[in-house]
Amino acid sequence: MAAEPPRRATIVEVGPRDGLQNEREPIATEHKRRFIEMLVAAGLTDIEVTSFVHPSRVPQLADASELIASLPRLGAIRYSALVPNEKGLERAVESGISRIAVFTAASETFTQRNIGMTIAQSLEVFRDVVRRATSGGLTVRGYVSACFVCPYEGPVAPQRVCEVTEALLAMGVDEVAISDTIGAAVPTDVSRTVGALLQNVTPDRIALHLHDTYGTALANVCAGLELGIATFDASAGGLGGCPFAPGAAGNLATEDLVYLLERMGIATGVDLDKLIEASAYIRGVLGRELSSRNLRRLRPMPAP
Amino acid sequence: MAAEPPRRATIVEVGPRDGLQNEREPIATEHKRRFIEMLVAAGLTDIEVTSFVHPSRVPQLADASELIASLPRLGAIRYSALVPNEKGLERAVESGISRIAVFTAASETFTQRNIGMTIAQSLEVFRDVVRRATSGGLTVRGYVSACFVCPYEGPVAPQRVCEVTEALLAMGVDEVAISDTIGAAVPTDVSRTVGALLQNVTPDRIALHLHDTYGTALANVCAGLELGIATFDASAGGLGGCPFAPGAAGNLATEDLVYLLERMGIATGVDLDKLIEASAYIRGVLGRELSSRNLRRLRPMPAP
Repeated sequence: MAAEPPRRATIVEVGPRDGLQNEREPIATEHKRRFIEMLVAAGLTDIEVTSFVHPSRVPQLADASELIASLPRLGAIRYSALVPNEKGLERAVESGISRIAVFTAASETFTQRNIGMTIAQSLEVFRDVVRRATSGGLTVRGYVSACFVCPYEGPVAPQRVCEVTEALLAMGVDEVAISDTIGAAVPTDVSRTVGALLQNVTPDRIALHLHDTYGTALANVCAGLELGIATFDASAGGLGGCPFAPGAAGNLATEDLVYLLERMGIATGVDLDKLIEASAYIRGVLGRELSSRNLRRLRPMPAP
Repeated sequence: MAAEPPRRATIVEVGPRDGLQNEREPIATEHKRRFIEMLVAAGLTDIEVTSFVHPSRVPQLADASELIASLPRLGAIRYSALVPNEKGLERAVESGISRIAVFTAASETFTQRNIGMTIAQSLEVFRDVVRRATSGGLTVRGYVSACFVCPYEGPVAPQRVCEVTEALLAMGVDEVAISDTIGAAVPTDVSRTVGALLQNVTPDRIALHLHDTYGTALANVCAGLELGIATFDASAGGLGGCPFAPGAAGNLATEDLVYLLERMGIATGVDLDKLIEASAYIRGVLGRELSSRNLRRLRPMPAP
């Protein structure tokens, strides 16, 4: 199963969406715009900036269209937004964004609780969304949540992950983010599940979306690298998790990922110092320390 | 170079020494004793409890003899203490402890700044210490600091690590802790340096002593496991680092190590819940949150 580790990796920055959707108070659009500009200045080229989930469900991202309209259009930058259904797709198309992401899960209970559908129903919904999106010239990413451990069902069978991933790819999704939603995975889980996936799917179609709840995210990245995976999601500063549940963890911090990859000789195109500027900026807006080890180490939060 | 990962790992708990020596205010002996008792109750069998470095250099551990005298004597538990020289050895022998640790480094500049000697001089000093200790029935562990990146010299050549490690083993040290003192290593560093070591040394003589400055410690553990290394140092709660330099990182947190290993099917003999009890106790004594991801997640610090 071992492949040559990649020489170059792509980081999909999800902090503006997966991070900021978990904040108690909505952040002003202007702060989001500035944050994203700083992420672009740091060299990030794939940025999930917001979500078209109904504003009543995620009021933190209710300004999705306004935010997208405010972003600098740069040819090299792929902005994307989460889309839950046809209605969300309409809003996404109107906003002018050129890439969307759809999402389901590998666990039946998780899918029910998260989006109120069975996995099969969610795939049915997304089949239409993806067809309309791609025929309109948009590209589509897919997320599969709870690929390793489900908070309701426990360990998730690799076969479930394969079925859902292959279904998404078959409908026209160009990349699937295999997601450790609760951050419970360890490297042997990644080797087993991603190894199973790579029986039928090439590694360039797979990204790893890791949370760092128990500190295993970078070890899991390494397990992915050994299988030839070269795309990883991360969140500047380690944004994410729920500020009301202390200890609830955010995404793998982009700084920590960049540090690891660059020191291992895998190019990311990201300037760590400029990335830390961006994280320090959003930390200042949020007014609390973030979980990124590199941020805390290299730019400790000033005392109040 | 790849070996079968071990089925069982040994954790050397260094929190009472490597952690508490960095606290601004000395901790009362009674708190240290209670902390160590709780670590034992959690199943830890190898615990570095204190140091016989001169009390003027590390006043936090000036109570070394008193602490050792207060500890429960249990046959299955190996307590150890750091010893810098003959004078320290005398105090250690008087204290009744049965295992000591000596320490040098793989970087000349680091050794000079840390202990005011050349590497060769330090090996000369320790040759006598180890001979006297082993002939008196004590066992001796060795530390080699700055094995991957030196804060003064930058990257450290594996050959330097091999030379110093082999010199320590030749003088009667039974295990050498290959130390990432500033926590800057990444898995490729571990593979390279430990791989070079294993040309001439069996894996049971090697431990990895990792700090988690940039979040890479668990990924480095996995690189060690792949080479057959089965002994890892860690510090309950992730104690360590300097509280005056926010962001300065402590040791790899024992909880995070236990979580990773147990979930990967590698037995540690440690009860994670009881370990978290111990870490929560010492956190309460210190009055500040610690860096362990598992501790923060599973037992958030109560609001003041």
